[in-house]
Amino acid sequence: MIATGTISINGREYRLPPRPVAVICIDGCANEYLDQGIARGLMPNMARLTSEGFRGMARGALPSFTNVNNAAIVTGAPPRVHGLPGNFFLDPETGEEVMMNSSKYLRAETILAAASKAGRKVAFITAKNKLLELLSAGMEGIAFSSEKAREATMERNGIADVEKLVGPTPEIYSGDASVYVLKAGVSLVENQLADFLYLSLTDFMQHTYAPEASESLEFYRDIDTEIGRLMNLGVIVGGTADHGMNGKTLPDGSPNVIYLETRLCEKFGDGFKVILPITDPYVKHHGALGSFGAVHVPAALEGRISEVMDFIWSLPGVTEVLEKSRAVDLLELPADRTGDIVVMSGRNVVLGRTPAHHDLSQLDAPLRSHGGRYEEMVPIFTSLPLNGDYQSRVQGDVRNFDVFDLTLNGVQL
Amino acid sequence: MIATGTISINGREYRLPPRPVAVICIDGCANEYLDQGIARGLMPNMARLTSEGFRGMARGALPSFTNVNNAAIVTGAPPRVHGLPGNFFLDPETGEEVMMNSSKYLRAETILAAASKAGRKVAFITAKNKLLELLSAGMEGIAFSSEKAREATMERNGIADVEKLVGPTPEIYSGDASVYVLKAGVSLVENQLADFLYLSLTDFMQHTYAPEASESLEFYRDIDTEIGRLMNLGVIVGGTADHGMNGKTLPDGSPNVIYLETRLCEKFGDGFKVILPITDPYVKHHGALGSFGAVHVPAALEGRISEVMDFIWSLPGVTEVLEKSRAVDLLELPADRTGDIVVMSGRNVVLGRTPAHHDLSQLDAPLRSHGGRYEEMVPIFTSLPLNGDYQSRVQGDVRNFDVFDLTLNGVQL
Repeated sequence: MIATGTISINGREYRLPPRPVAVICIDGCANEYLDQGIARGLMPNMARLTSEGFRGMARGALPSFTNVNNAAIVTGAPPRVHGLPGNFFLDPETGEEVMMNSSKYLRAETILAAASKAGRKVAFITAKNKLLELLSAGMEGIAFSSEKAREATMERNGIADVEKLVGPTPEIYSGDASVYVLKAGVSLVENQLADFLYLSLTDFMQHTYAPEASESLEFYRDIDTEIGRLMNLGVIVGGTADHGMNGKTLPDGSPNVIYLETRLCEKFGDGFKVILPITDPYVKHHGALGSFGAVHVPAALEGRISEVMDFIWSLPGVTEVLEKSRAVDLLELPADRTGDIVVMSGRNVVLGRTPAHHDLSQLDAPLRSHGGRYEEMVPIFTSLPLNGDYQSRVQGDVRNFDVFDLTLNGVQL
Repeated sequence: MIATGTISINGREYRLPPRPVAVICIDGCANEYLDQGIARGLMPNMARLTSEGFRGMARGALPSFTNVNNAAIVTGAPPRVHGLPGNFFLDPETGEEVMMNSSKYLRAETILAAASKAGRKVAFITAKNKLLELLSAGMEGIAFSSEKAREATMERNGIADVEKLVGPTPEIYSGDASVYVLKAGVSLVENQLADFLYLSLTDFMQHTYAPEASESLEFYRDIDTEIGRLMNLGVIVGGTADHGMNGKTLPDGSPNVIYLETRLCEKFGDGFKVILPITDPYVKHHGALGSFGAVHVPAALEGRISEVMDFIWSLPGVTEVLEKSRAVDLLELPADRTGDIVVMSGRNVVLGRTPAHHDLSQLDAPLRSHGGRYEEMVPIFTSLPLNGDYQSRVQGDVRNFDVFDLTLNGVQL
């Protein structure tokens, strides 16, 4: 018996349908990956879903990073509401730079928590363990990462013996780390252990391989297979991405980096801190280089913000420079967790801090990354067609964090 | 005998291959249109090209309008070089607002002209007659529009009796106006009348129908058929779009307009001119509403530009406000043809001048338009695979006006 009814959370209402639901976040899924897989006939389920369900493009939250957008998806709300401006920030209370991997930073209740309270059998499965505690706050049910599947216990994760159910714990720097999440979701539905799932993958593959690479094609073929299994089990499937992905290289393949803290200190003197909110524990993905930076200006220069901004604008490859108050408005950021100046860089340009901050030797391939405006637009899809009201709505400005709304409220049952 | 060799134009070199070449500009081709057509199996040639040739995303020139980007494509250069900042501008020499449909505004030689001088049989076929004189400047060969195919003469267009060759002149407000361009290209190649073609379509269909609409699907099926015919004739085909397309509507389907000139005059007094460079003779497409505006500030307010900019930033839906010098740098615009302030609006927001300036009754469907950042990214493709050098280059920041470069220099013959 599947719990139905309506939940109300962060100012939005969601209908709980009488069928299992799975929302998937394909981390780093620039639409180009789907383009390549579908054109080659490797993603028959996504092709079917495109014609029989709904597929379009959605605008993600900025900065276009994992924690920001996963938090937005599970709360159905922008960063202003959920409180996460990145994976990493300068805590104004302590003055320390910290990873935002703890639910203590999350300022909004999640749809997952609300659904579990309403009686759904909720499961949250993530590839990256860093999201686990962050996004499972307040929910009852099953919550584990493929990264640490082996260590899951009934007490801590609501499930034990995951390896018996799904298979051996995959390596985090692999495509399997993501496919395992989907396979686990299929198993939970098959075993009636869950009827309301959030499945969040990792973008190691997209950081490492371009859309047309054979490794990407195999990865997306495997993703498609699992999506098809969910659809065939009668699950209402919705999906989106947290952000896109672009090559951040010069024509010769070398990384295209602006070391912003270095440049600012050279120009104006020491004391600048450039926070790169892409920073996270997964060093092989991107070397902490992304297309978004938050500049904390030293107190002595607070009267010269516009001069600092003019200098940043003068750096080729910079595409947007926003003073805090404007960034907060435009990007819907939490004001108390944003730098004095927000900077975004171009499609093939990343912002670094200083050369010493970034170990590019960890990268397995030419740099591919995200964080800025050019990774804002992502695919969004549902396995069932939208109703008339939502068909009209999605012609406007659908957001990736509308994916639960579309999947729960928007589809024709 | 097909002329080979190398041409050099606007600082770039192009190799003339010993096979017919056709570059296609699919006007208003947001990638979503290809997604829908390919997933449904209606675009088998584009699917084949995606796997056997090259397909990716390119960054267009801003503002994301037809004349700007068609001029960029045929010159292989940004607006700063070719001189066109829109379809329409305020001529600083005369103080008059004029359509930029004349080659007198074009400041760079075209690849078409250079190829014809090098002995290629060049053909330029456009759906919209407005582009004809503008872009055929300096070229020998065949140049006509499907809009006025019936009127083509050997003297003026390098060809007569187009209707005998291709069929009856299509209605400009139709998909046929575009498909006719491609059919004409096929006919010219079949009859060995051309071996170097630029085929530029019109976006009436994209303005009127969303990607998943049956009208769009049929239109793209027909486009695909003609691309396949070109490929089967041994033509090296390259393609891109001038700009994307987004619904510019509120959730209820009504147009989402900021009447910027009205707002500025209310706030600061009369004398503002907001030039909307989307303005062109094709009134049923978009009612002159797009996501880009150039504000000309009255002389009395020249000392208060930053105050005016702050006010524009305060209008919800505005996403970028750039002072002239910054806009010129960032968007590579011709400085003498740009307003004092450049404004862009969001994915589902257009800028209007005053309500009286826009006749929305001409629209056949909910407003879909372009002009801003959210229509900057467009598909790009070649029918043959890229060589190793270009495979690396396209991982960075490929532009839509690199399409001749990719097609002529980048493919494996």
